[in-house]
Amino acid sequence: MLTRTTAQSLTDQLANLFAERIRSRLLAHGSRLPSVRECARQQGVSTSTVVAAYDQLLAQGLVEARAQRGFFVREAAPGAPRGPAQAAPDGGQPLPSGSQFNATALIRGMFHQASDKPQPGSGVLPLEWLDNTFMASAVRKATSGRALREASLRYGEPMGDLGLRQALARKLAHLGVPAAPEQIITTVGATQALDVVSRMLLKPGDPVMVEEPGWSVEFARLDALGMRVLPVPRLPAGPDLEVMARYCEAHAPKLFVSVSVFHNPTGYCLSPGSAHRVLQLAQEHGFHIVEDDTYSHIAPEHATRMTVLDGLARTIYVSGFAKILAPNWRVGYLAAPPALVERLLDTKLLNTLTTPSLLERALATCIDQGQLRRHAERIRARLDQARTRSVRLARQAGCTFVAEPTGLFGWVDTGVDTELLAQRMLDEGYLLAPGALFSASRQPSTLMRINFANTQDAAFWRVYGRLVAAQGR
Amino acid sequence: MLTRTTAQSLTDQLANLFAERIRSRLLAHGSRLPSVRECARQQGVSTSTVVAAYDQLLAQGLVEARAQRGFFVREAAPGAPRGPAQAAPDGGQPLPSGSQFNATALIRGMFHQASDKPQPGSGVLPLEWLDNTFMASAVRKATSGRALREASLRYGEPMGDLGLRQALARKLAHLGVPAAPEQIITTVGATQALDVVSRMLLKPGDPVMVEEPGWSVEFARLDALGMRVLPVPRLPAGPDLEVMARYCEAHAPKLFVSVSVFHNPTGYCLSPGSAHRVLQLAQEHGFHIVEDDTYSHIAPEHATRMTVLDGLARTIYVSGFAKILAPNWRVGYLAAPPALVERLLDTKLLNTLTTPSLLERALATCIDQGQLRRHAERIRARLDQARTRSVRLARQAGCTFVAEPTGLFGWVDTGVDTELLAQRMLDEGYLLAPGALFSASRQPSTLMRINFANTQDAAFWRVYGRLVAAQGR
Repeated sequence: MLTRTTAQSLTDQLANLFAERIRSRLLAHGSRLPSVRECARQQGVSTSTVVAAYDQLLAQGLVEARAQRGFFVREAAPGAPRGPAQAAPDGGQPLPSGSQFNATALIRGMFHQASDKPQPGSGVLPLEWLDNTFMASAVRKATSGRALREASLRYGEPMGDLGLRQALARKLAHLGVPAAPEQIITTVGATQALDVVSRMLLKPGDPVMVEEPGWSVEFARLDALGMRVLPVPRLPAGPDLEVMARYCEAHAPKLFVSVSVFHNPTGYCLSPGSAHRVLQLAQEHGFHIVEDDTYSHIAPEHATRMTVLDGLARTIYVSGFAKILAPNWRVGYLAAPPALVERLLDTKLLNTLTTPSLLERALATCIDQGQLRRHAERIRARLDQARTRSVRLARQAGCTFVAEPTGLFGWVDTGVDTELLAQRMLDEGYLLAPGALFSASRQPSTLMRINFANTQDAAFWRVYGRLVAAQGR
Repeated sequence: MLTRTTAQSLTDQLANLFAERIRSRLLAHGSRLPSVRECARQQGVSTSTVVAAYDQLLAQGLVEARAQRGFFVREAAPGAPRGPAQAAPDGGQPLPSGSQFNATALIRGMFHQASDKPQPGSGVLPLEWLDNTFMASAVRKATSGRALREASLRYGEPMGDLGLRQALARKLAHLGVPAAPEQIITTVGATQALDVVSRMLLKPGDPVMVEEPGWSVEFARLDALGMRVLPVPRLPAGPDLEVMARYCEAHAPKLFVSVSVFHNPTGYCLSPGSAHRVLQLAQEHGFHIVEDDTYSHIAPEHATRMTVLDGLARTIYVSGFAKILAPNWRVGYLAAPPALVERLLDTKLLNTLTTPSLLERALATCIDQGQLRRHAERIRARLDQARTRSVRLARQAGCTFVAEPTGLFGWVDTGVDTELLAQRMLDEGYLLAPGALFSASRQPSTLMRINFANTQDAAFWRVYGRLVAAQGR
């Protein structure tokens, strides 16, 4: 917030505030600054202060003025070279190329500590929730004496630490996914797993189906790789099968990327019937499916997974530990049909060579000793309580749940444009996840995603209520 | 080696031996098995045993027979989808697409422990050389108490651990590369750094100049990304400037990937004059340069680097620690012109999100306390001794050094086809690095790369001498 007591003028403070947000990509390229009048009201300064601040941003080349329309954030540098990226909305017409997937705002937001307050837009559990006592002894085991030497001085197994892959195979068997350790490849988080799968299965220009709303990082990656992104509406029971069928006829997509369980951002879980129908379509039209099971640790074990029905025949399973244990260890993995494993491994090797064994071994210990499972049980119980409280507060603040509240995220309607709301909430130290960030075509939206663990605080909802009311005026 | 004492028949043993090599990609797709007569002689079995073993491999679908030509290793699975990859040899004609860069054999070889003997074809220093006492205390510092929590429970800085980037900035300043911590991005080994640079600067189909001979993993990655690979002969003073100039006129390449210091496999170091001329070409034709300084720790500090002359204006510096400390920590980095940093960071985020802070912090400690520098000094002295001994033994065994012996690798002429020799040496438990693996078009060659640290053993050279003599007959 701006202050009149510092050596810096209000104009300079305001210009710096916007410059910082533009540089850190919290204000994405192409997004509009608030109108002069609105900004003045919002910040409690005169319109001439705002005009002077915007002029500074113009002079710095950070924004551009468009006649009759206001000030817009400029592209940072001369346009990056891009692949022949295209996206198609519901039935076939490709969207204009590439740059609409400016997911950098969301990604940067993930790593932006807006304040010390719990962050409603965050995608991960709070640090205190993840904290545990067993991690330290697992790391000690992986780093003491000869173990450290072994996990440091020579490259690890290309597929990933064998002990971890064995532990993962047992874990997957428990879910009903039949994966031998030889079908499992460890990666730098689930993110690299998804990247490796896309790079191996697709060539630039290939059509890929994704779920919408969905995870923008996935849209952005496919776009950056030059793929044609085909967004399929995600319904409560699963992807919209009619749209998928039309895509199959019109575009012959090569891949479908799906979060079956606790879909992000809706929390929807795939129904057995939908799973079966999607697999039938895949069979009929010859596409592969990658099932991103990032939320598996907080999900019920009996949840429907396509990789279970299909037995890893034309499906690839991807998951990681960022949502349950140690996001910063960056341990993820994929489990694939035997016929694809070698080429997936080649792609991993060309990307990063191997992955660090030290952290993989520590993680294997956490799994083997049952500590991770018990930790996940505690977190599920805690999340259930948090959800109950957050849902009540959200409803009191006037939010409507578009999807039945479950899992980690709530998908709520605020009644006002959430991109604008997010800019305002940032001034109050809160990072939101506006609906536009989950839209392949970046459509403005009144929806937003909330993290149930981080929205139990009545103070947040009071600020929220005040700003929504102001915006709605 | 085959044995008559086991329960398994010689035919089965021989078939299994080849099957294992094919599965582990030590025998690359498309490579020819030895003739029946030759294999019989080599393995000391009858030709009928070999015929029966080859029949087994045929039945298993691992090899195919081609009339009048013998047995060839089959593609593992139905052809992977590929980008519009093409390569051009010396003057402009593109090579046939893609699959000639089957670098998987080399990469898999890197991770294949042929035996407990020192491996002449290895690209890294022996484990005992890398071993040290300071690594353990650096890891303890990064993993005790709150430090572990901080380095585990939330995502690290997107750019990489700040302490490490500051240490790297000082290290680079010492070399004369002017990089602020804000220009440095950490990666999963130098491999991810090279991958991120290619993905960010290029789009599929773009022409890229590489050095030949050169590092096949780089050829393979560019090929897999769909780039057009233009091999530039590497001469003692630097890349062949005439060929580069012709490429610039004919293809307008977007990037040149170069190892200036202790080039792999020749050991050549770039001359100041060549560096200047290459930079002039880059300026004139508008391409970027990525300088892979993987061998910096064993190189003289005054060695010529293009990033020093250019001051990171249109050059990107890439390096890592796999050759000096802990290959398995997978810590690498890049330093880039300020205008490119944001987009390189986006590409890293789309690939792996962040990188593990725990190992980055441990590495920062090793650098900050001067331990890594002293360790590198010890290794350089040890390598000098090893080189003297290896060169003498190699010359006694009849090898000719094509390049003046220096650095980690020797580039030697054996007088016989080294791909065939490599297959035979594998039977004796030695992994070689035949010249074809450093050729963009996979040309057969009598050259091979030797690792000076691993070729001090007279026993190896005796086996080598015997097999070369047998092959030359």
